[in-house]
Amino acid sequence: MTGYYGEHSKVWVSVDCIVFGFEENCLKVLIGRREMDPGRGEWSLYGGFVGSDESLHNAANRVLKNLTGLDNLYMKQVGAFGEIDRDPGERVISIAYCALINVKDYDDALRQKHHLEWVALENLPKLYSDHNKMVTDAITLLRRRLKTEPLSFNLLPELFTLTQLQHVYEAIINEEIDKRNFRKRIKQIEYIEKTEYIDKLTSKRGAALYRFNRKAYEEDPSFRL
Amino acid sequence: MTGYYGEHSKVWVSVDCIVFGFEENCLKVLIGRREMDPGRGEWSLYGGFVGSDESLHNAANRVLKNLTGLDNLYMKQVGAFGEIDRDPGERVISIAYCALINVKDYDDALRQKHHLEWVALENLPKLYSDHNKMVTDAITLLRRRLKTEPLSFNLLPELFTLTQLQHVYEAIINEEIDKRNFRKRIKQIEYIEKTEYIDKLTSKRGAALYRFNRKAYEEDPSFRL
Repeated sequence: MTGYYGEHSKVWVSVDCIVFGFEENCLKVLIGRREMDPGRGEWSLYGGFVGSDESLHNAANRVLKNLTGLDNLYMKQVGAFGEIDRDPGERVISIAYCALINVKDYDDALRQKHHLEWVALENLPKLYSDHNKMVTDAITLLRRRLKTEPLSFNLLPELFTLTQLQHVYEAIINEEIDKRNFRKRIKQIEYIEKTEYIDKLTSKRGAALYRFNRKAYEEDPSFRL
Repeated sequence: MTGYYGEHSKVWVSVDCIVFGFEENCLKVLIGRREMDPGRGEWSLYGGFVGSDESLHNAANRVLKNLTGLDNLYMKQVGAFGEIDRDPGERVISIAYCALINVKDYDDALRQKHHLEWVALENLPKLYSDHNKMVTDAITLLRRRLKTEPLSFNLLPELFTLTQLQHVYEAIINEEIDKRNFRKRIKQIEYIEKTEYIDKLTSKRGAALYRFNRKAYEEDPSFRL
């Protein structure tokens, strides 16, 4: 350690993950009750300390893998949270990440093992420390990015109906969308492909199932919904 | 210190500031040569360590005040940079902030004291550590936010011509804008006020000077350019 670094003090750094899922036509967040002090029993996001041998990105991936059993989730850094008194125990700076998962991909036994619940965004209780602010910033980020990135597919199964897709959009922006305009625009988007499959569960006539073609998107990501 | 925290290792956390200015119709970044090891003599952003008694936001404000003499600059957090080997000396996680200043407000003696230069974004040299990535992320953030926030006024003097305003927009988005459409839209924006003053320096006929009315904007921030 050189003198230049040694003059300054170190701090603990953690990552906290805001995991969004889509169920019953609404956006939900994965939260649990803290099992350690300080704040034991309070509702909280799921997080962990950043190790000396891992990048922030890898720390967030480790925490998410541990939490969901899933690798390479769609994940974005939300920001660094650094108020001095944000953690009631010690000075901890936390970097928040948000991830989008398809609830059905998530092993429910793992959710129960971690004592976590899917809670609708609009019913979120008071969370530990500044975690509510993290959630608010994460949803703001999603709303901004939704216009220029096809992120909603991460919340859906591989095959989905246009009604499901519309509901995901509506849940993120928290506004109703005109169905006709929405479908008209979807039809112009090359990377949203109609498949030969029909979903007979959601309507009597059956609804066509669609698929997000990532390869087509990567070749021409220019269209913005 | 409780056992729960003590099991984990601490790291140094710094802030790095990307200071943007607008001069000679182009967007510039304030950089200097490092005066300490590691990386002595390399081009670098201006930063500092986060103290144990200050929030991230306050640390960035302190660094910016020290650098520019200016308080309450327009400042946004760009993100946390946390690769293990990003700093060649020790493990340091850095939170990048970007600030927009009007070059003419900036005391040039202070710039010289810190041995800093305004370098055009397009001519930026290789910078220390991951600082080029910080600049790229900062400009991406500005481009996104420009559509929904009146941030360009921070780069201009209090009174400006519409040509100057157009040039700021063009510099940030790095594209030419159609002058007639631009002026048509500006006229619809209540918070961009025409003043009774005329600028005789930039054209023979003289150009009307405008002002950003922050109060009017705060009352009705709905318009997006």
